[in-house]
This record gives sequence, structure tokens and C-alpha cells, in this order.
Amino acid sequence: MARLRRLLPATSDAVHAGIGDDCAAVAGGKQGVLVLLKTDCVVEGRHFLASDASSAVGWKAACRAVSDIAACGGESRFALVTCVLQHAQTGRWLEGLYRGLSRAARVYQFEIVGGELARTDGPAMISVAMTGEVLRRKFVPRGGGRPGDFLYVTGVLGGSMRSGWHLRFTPRAAEAGWLTEHFRPRAMMDVSDGLAADLPRLAAASGTGFVLDPSCVPRRRGASLRQALGEGEDFELLFAVAPSRATLLEAAWRKKFPRVKLSRIGRLAPAGTAEGLERASGFDHFAP
Amino acid sequence: MARLRRLLPATSDAVHAGIGDDCAAVAGGKQGVLVLLKTDCVVEGRHFLASDASSAVGWKAACRAVSDIAACGGESRFALVTCVLQHAQTGRWLEGLYRGLSRAARVYQFEIVGGELARTDGPAMISVAMTGEVLRRKFVPRGGGRPGDFLYVTGVLGGSMRSGWHLRFTPRAAEAGWLTEHFRPRAMMDVSDGLAADLPRLAAASGTGFVLDPSCVPRRRGASLRQALGEGEDFELLFAVAPSRATLLEAAWRKKFPRVKLSRIGRLAPAGTAEGLERASGFDHFAP
Repeated sequence: MARLRRLLPATSDAVHAGIGDDCAAVAGGKQGVLVLLKTDCVVEGRHFLASDASSAVGWKAACRAVSDIAACGGESRFALVTCVLQHAQTGRWLEGLYRGLSRAARVYQFEIVGGELARTDGPAMISVAMTGEVLRRKFVPRGGGRPGDFLYVTGVLGGSMRSGWHLRFTPRAAEAGWLTEHFRPRAMMDVSDGLAADLPRLAAASGTGFVLDPSCVPRRRGASLRQALGEGEDFELLFAVAPSRATLLEAAWRKKFPRVKLSRIGRLAPAGTAEGLERASGFDHFAP
Repeated sequence: MARLRRLLPATSDAVHAGIGDDCAAVAGGKQGVLVLLKTDCVVEGRHFLASDASSAVGWKAACRAVSDIAACGGESRFALVTCVLQHAQTGRWLEGLYRGLSRAARVYQFEIVGGELARTDGPAMISVAMTGEVLRRKFVPRGGGRPGDFLYVTGVLGGSMRSGWHLRFTPRAAEAGWLTEHFRPRAMMDVSDGLAADLPRLAAASGTGFVLDPSCVPRRRGASLRQALGEGEDFELLFAVAPSRATLLEAAWRKKFPRVKLSRIGRLAPAGTAEGLERASGFDHFAP
């Protein structure tokens, strides 16, 4: 995207965070509030299968965007849904999709206010454009980490496709809200392309390097380290916290979210350092 | 969409206009301002061809959303771009696409603040999610028309694909801004699926019928009436104005926009009336 970004006009003061962050954050009108903007799409054969229940596909399509907005410290507000579907995916299939979208809207308190239907002969695609809101002082960028910050990840990684987690995952919205309220992570993002791809992105955005401790990477039952690092579709939070807050954070987390694992997986380091990823290769949607 | 809408939770007071209007309009934060939300996608083989210049495809993808926001009386602010592309459409093709998007951003004064790239083996798809702003008192809905209102359309209709207009059209943003400022149309939308499909939608949203005078429908050189009514991709404004304002509007328009035709094509009528469309059939992206 860096090359493409150069083709675009420079952005104005109204843009607090843009291309390269999980969400765009723009001046919203209300004093002290940023509006978060996010689009996220799922493509048949890549993010879901034709045989998957369409309600689960709807849930996933919406919750991916919820997850990104949460990772910026924000809350979802409004969504538009673009469905590019095959002939056979109208009728009951489409109703199921909308049931999944609706359920996500009820649970995560956003409103579906519009969208578009188009037809394709190729793989189906559902794109969700979502707005959110965050207090300016609570916005958590991807790039605010500093060398020495401890790195944490929620939940377990790997095996998301095989286990079905990718279709019925719980976006870490409650956890992200609590974290930003009480522990102000310096940098945060959600892990969607795999830790091996996303950790270097968080470090690069922060202008730092990283040291990962592979033995601390939390794995889903049956997942290898390579799978935990590289498969993606985890939708867990990855964040950096000042070391001075670590002890308090870990104790408070266990009390607040006893059923969601929190793992300290390493630390940010001076730029140029990249340790602990030798045994994995992430995948990038546009890797050559 | 009516059937799908029933599957969604009811929307709150924050939603001023939702599914069924050109844009969603939601409470924005700033007092008296509505935020407009729109997504619009172009699909290869349907809205553009693989052989079209990708810069023109980018222009079209962005300007379709600009056109919808203008038709609500608003101005574009921010955009997110989702590209689902084939392997061959990276590199120079993608750069051309972004040049077209950038040009639209400069001309129509919005900022591209993010987006997403994904790969497909099927037809390419570019979806633009755009926000806009409009003063609440200037918002023009699709459904505010009353029986007796005069119906107008800008420019000429038909032959959009053949002439290349669909790839390099000028969204009627200046015209829409001037209209809402000086003549407050009661209902407005842009003609994207053809007048034969879009006029009944405007009337239905307004709870009225319509009487179209086919002889007044402005046609592009070489286009038949059937093509002018049914082909679509025109991106002209269709709007309804109180008859008392017609003479003044027509004179002022000729002075302000001497190069853009304005045609009075009929009037809204009591519900149940539908005259003048017998000779055409529009196309609907999801017609059975």
C-alpha cells in the first residue's frame, strides 16, 4: 500500500489516522471524538466456503469490522453491507446472511443502515463498511509502541479455519474497551493475517523492532507453532503495554476475563531487531 | 430489500434515512449536520470491462458514490476503497486505478483514508465506501415528493455504455448543491439503473404515482427511447419540485448551467398512477 499511498493526495488535519492503521480515524464533529471508518470483505473460497451456513458468513463479515474498530479502542455505530452474490445465493441463503449480520448488530450495538446487492458469476463477496466512535484521548493507534514495551496477545492462535473459530469468533470488543479504559495500550491491532505477518506490521508502524518468544505463543489445541503464527483469521488482540504496568494488568485481566487467556509473548525492541519468527511464515493477501 | 429489512433490528433515532434511500443519513455529532454513508461497487463484466483503462474504472468507482451523496444534497468527505482483484490487476493496473480514484478525490474534495486489497479468481470488484455531510435542513430524501410536483432530469439519458459516458461521467455535484441551496427539491435521486427503474422508486418512496411524458425524455445522440429509459448508468439527477417554482428554476438553470440540459419530463401523481413507461423496461441488478 505504501506505493499506492504516494499516488493519493496528502490528507488534511481532519485525518487523525489513515491508510496503514486498522481503521481510519477522522475528526467527527463532536468535540473530542474521532469517527472510525473501516471496510472489510470476505471472499468465498478464501474467507468462507460455499458450504458454510450463510448466517455464520454474515456473522463473520460483520465481526471482522467490529474487531478492527475495537482494536482502535472504539465502539461500532453504523454499517453498510455490500453483497456481490451468485444466482443461487439469493432467497434463503441471503436471508441467512442477514440473520447473521443482524445478530452481530444486536450483540455489538451497531445499526445496519444500508447496502447494496450485485450479482457475479465468480466467487461471492460480502463487504462491510462500518463506522465507529472513540474519544480522541482513547484512540489506540497501531504505531504507538516503544522499544521495551511488553507484547500481549489474547486467546489462542492457529487452527481457526479447521476449528470453525473463524466463522463464529467473538470479537474482543469488551476486552479492548476495558484495556483502553484501564491500561491504555500504546499500540494495538487485531491479528487477522497471522502473528508472523501482523507483529512485524505493529513494530514497523511503531518504528521499532521486536523480540518474540515462540514458546509463549498461545496455540489452539492441535495447532503447531507454525500454524499459530502463520494461518491467520484469529481475530485476537495484539497489543503493547509499558512494562511498568504489566504486573497489574496481568492480575486484573485474570480477574476480569477469567475465560480468555492473556499471554505475554515478547517485547518491542530497537528498530532492526526481528527475533523469534524464523520458524514461521505468515501469509499476506497480496504476497507476490 | 424490503424482505431483508424485516430481518434487521429496528433503527434508532440517530438514523434519519436508511435502507432504500440513496445514502444512509445519521446523526453526526455537529449540531444540525447529518453524516451521509454510502457504499457502491463496480463489478468487472458488468460495470466495466477488463479492457477499460483502470484509471477510468477508478474514476467511475469513486464518482458513483459522489453522485449518490450529491443527490442527497451533501458533499463528499472521506472514502475507503476495497479492491478485490485478479492476479494480473496488481502493479500498473492497480496504480492506474488509484490515479483515477485520486483525480476524483481532488475534483470532488474527499479524502481517501483507507481500504483493503483482496484477491479473486473471478471478476474484479471495486467497492467504495464514502462519507459525506449535509446540513439537516438541506438533506433531500428520495421520498419527499407530492402529487403534482414537476419532475426534472439533468443531462441526457441512454447510450452511456456505448459512448463511454459511464466511465468518465461528471457527477452532478455542483448542480445538486446549487439546487438544494436555491430550489430545495422535495425528492431527488441519481439515475443509475435507468429512468424506467428509478422513477417508480422515487414515486414509491414518496407514496405517489407518476405521469411521464416520453417525448420529453432527453436522449443521448443515437439512443432510442427504450435505451434512454432502460439502459441505466446515466448518473444524472432526477428530482421533484413544487410547480410554483418551475418557471424560476428553469430560467435560473439555463443561466447557471448553460451546458447541462434540464428537462421537465412529467409530474408526480396520486398513488396508483403509472403512465408513460409502457414502452420501456428498466433493468434491476437483482430482478428475478
